[in-house]
Amino acid sequence: MDDAFKVTPWDVEGMVDYAKLIEEFGTSPLTDELLEKTARLTTSELPIYFRRRFFFSHRDYDKVLEDYENGKGFFLYTGRGPSGPMHIGHIIPFFATKWLQEKFGVNLYVQITDDEKFLFKERLTFDDTKRWAYDNILDIIAVGFDPDKTFIFQDSEFTKIYEMAIPIAKKINYSMAKAVFGFTEQSKIGMIFYPAIQAAPTFFERKRCLIPAAIDQDPYWRLQRDFAESLGYYKTAAIHSKFVPGLMGLEGKMSASKPETAVYLTDDPEEAGKKIWKYALTGGRATAKEQREKGGEPEKCVVFKWFEIFFEPDDKKLMERYHACKSGELLCGQCKRELIERVQAFLKEHQKKRKEAEKKVEKFKYTGELAREQWEKSIPEPLKG
Amino acid sequence: MDDAFKVTPWDVEGMVDYAKLIEEFGTSPLTDELLEKTARLTTSELPIYFRRRFFFSHRDYDKVLEDYENGKGFFLYTGRGPSGPMHIGHIIPFFATKWLQEKFGVNLYVQITDDEKFLFKERLTFDDTKRWAYDNILDIIAVGFDPDKTFIFQDSEFTKIYEMAIPIAKKINYSMAKAVFGFTEQSKIGMIFYPAIQAAPTFFERKRCLIPAAIDQDPYWRLQRDFAESLGYYKTAAIHSKFVPGLMGLEGKMSASKPETAVYLTDDPEEAGKKIWKYALTGGRATAKEQREKGGEPEKCVVFKWFEIFFEPDDKKLMERYHACKSGELLCGQCKRELIERVQAFLKEHQKKRKEAEKKVEKFKYTGELAREQWEKSIPEPLKG
Repeated sequence: MDDAFKVTPWDVEGMVDYAKLIEEFGTSPLTDELLEKTARLTTSELPIYFRRRFFFSHRDYDKVLEDYENGKGFFLYTGRGPSGPMHIGHIIPFFATKWLQEKFGVNLYVQITDDEKFLFKERLTFDDTKRWAYDNILDIIAVGFDPDKTFIFQDSEFTKIYEMAIPIAKKINYSMAKAVFGFTEQSKIGMIFYPAIQAAPTFFERKRCLIPAAIDQDPYWRLQRDFAESLGYYKTAAIHSKFVPGLMGLEGKMSASKPETAVYLTDDPEEAGKKIWKYALTGGRATAKEQREKGGEPEKCVVFKWFEIFFEPDDKKLMERYHACKSGELLCGQCKRELIERVQAFLKEHQKKRKEAEKKVEKFKYTGELAREQWEKSIPEPLKG
Repeated sequence: MDDAFKVTPWDVEGMVDYAKLIEEFGTSPLTDELLEKTARLTTSELPIYFRRRFFFSHRDYDKVLEDYENGKGFFLYTGRGPSGPMHIGHIIPFFATKWLQEKFGVNLYVQITDDEKFLFKERLTFDDTKRWAYDNILDIIAVGFDPDKTFIFQDSEFTKIYEMAIPIAKKINYSMAKAVFGFTEQSKIGMIFYPAIQAAPTFFERKRCLIPAAIDQDPYWRLQRDFAESLGYYKTAAIHSKFVPGLMGLEGKMSASKPETAVYLTDDPEEAGKKIWKYALTGGRATAKEQREKGGEPEKCVVFKWFEIFFEPDDKKLMERYHACKSGELLCGQCKRELIERVQAFLKEHQKKRKEAEKKVEKFKYTGELAREQWEKSIPEPLKG
């Protein structure tokens, strides 16, 4: 735990908002105790996503750790809706997931929802979402998952999932689904069925499922928790992350619908640098003079937030940067240039791995150990309904 | 055409009811002209199902015949919901379908909806409907379809159908589906999605699809006709049959929910005979004396109806039976005994073929020419959405 962060204003401010979400959603805060137990069980230093409370809330993560401790084990499940290119905000939770897989040595299922995105996005064709699926899979593989413990599947290909979704779809009535997804008379019947497809992977193994996801995804899993035990399975567990902000403001999250606010994983590093230079919101003052006098406001600064969430792994250096800004010593231009360097280095490395990923797609989707197991096995017992 | 039947009272009475249905559903009567064209194109005598207007209504059957005439061809699609054993009322339309396949030389797709029955029947497990699927497939194969031109598939196995159903499910909104299926807030989301799965086989080929089905099934296909052309396909065509009555009355149809009114294809012939003897409603008078004087009422008689629909293929003999009954010459006991003989002979023959069918399941489901083609091919072009 890095106590220094708890007293910083942005964290307090952040805490207030996110604490409200914990209350609204009825989730539990990710406590020091749980994080310490995570470190102890993995005999590892926690990654920044945990140290800095990017993941801040959970459901049943305590039980996941107990299951691990007792030798029952657990598995990881996450996903991606392939409606366009992935940006930095999309990939960060995958790095956190990779850490969990590596340290706990567990299986990971990655659902690529080309069906969902086609159904929910009026303008996209099925071909579009299938093409984005391939594209996005490259980015996911580039993160470095274990190819024998990771199964990446596309709903439109791994249609066996339909068979698994049927018993689930007998447990969810329209009224329940509507309450969570806000369906109307105009909603397409494919959209209405989709929650069953989304819940299916939580039953891939007879162990507890842990879903790392942004807090806004929680309601979908609440649905699963309503009926999972009636199918003889566990309620799914989850750890919830905060949002990665876009370049132009700390509010909301990086969004593909506003391309100038996002840095895409396939952006040319040079162009990405220019985008950050041009658009990144800082906590700087009106003039350099004023800033030297009053200091900057890192708690209002996207550049600092990006360092905090992903681009400055060293806690001590992050605090130095914080104080250098506050004291007026470090000006925004310099700080931005340093972020740009980090982002460019990350993009170059990622794009190299992304290229290498082309040769690994087959393994993650079809021929790796876990992939083969999934393609071969039949529907799990209690899902027989 | 057998004009003799047109003037019989039961036919007129039947015509009145069914004509009302034609009007209500907005379908077209199956005219003499269309039946004559069917006979001409197939250079065959029409089977009793057509001659006696068991099939009496249609949508676009005229276009199907035109397509056949012009060399464009067409294909057949029918199905079975495996919720229990099949009875005589279930199998008769399959015999009509077999005639169409044989005479036109076309492909036939038989959808076994183990998903639907599991979803719609609260008390059935998925295992139940999968077991009934196997059982029912034996009865269907026993009808004698061409194993290289017939693909029998179970939704829970041929899950590729999910991929095909997605673009369909983007064309149907909740309000449309509700109007046809009567969904409520309590309907399971699997039920709501099901119309997309049911419509998918109408797109298995880029030809017109002809569905032989009882008239009450028409609304489901109306839904397909609403969006088929927007997917670059044909509106499906259909020919509609009347209902096969149960033993205890001409009203309604033979129903599995009243087992004493139905003769099952797996009934022991001896027991089936007793069931008919005990329960079959006749058009007989209170006493033999009265019947000899006034004659029977074949138009009110289930025994006669069964001869008419299936068990007396010879039109001349059927008319003789009609007049012998009307004149008081043929009494109910004798008539019932003759029906029992026919039913028993049919059951014995069917059960022999059903036994032989066990060895053919694999061919119809997986290894026959059409089956292989379907398992291998990918989603049709325009369904890419």
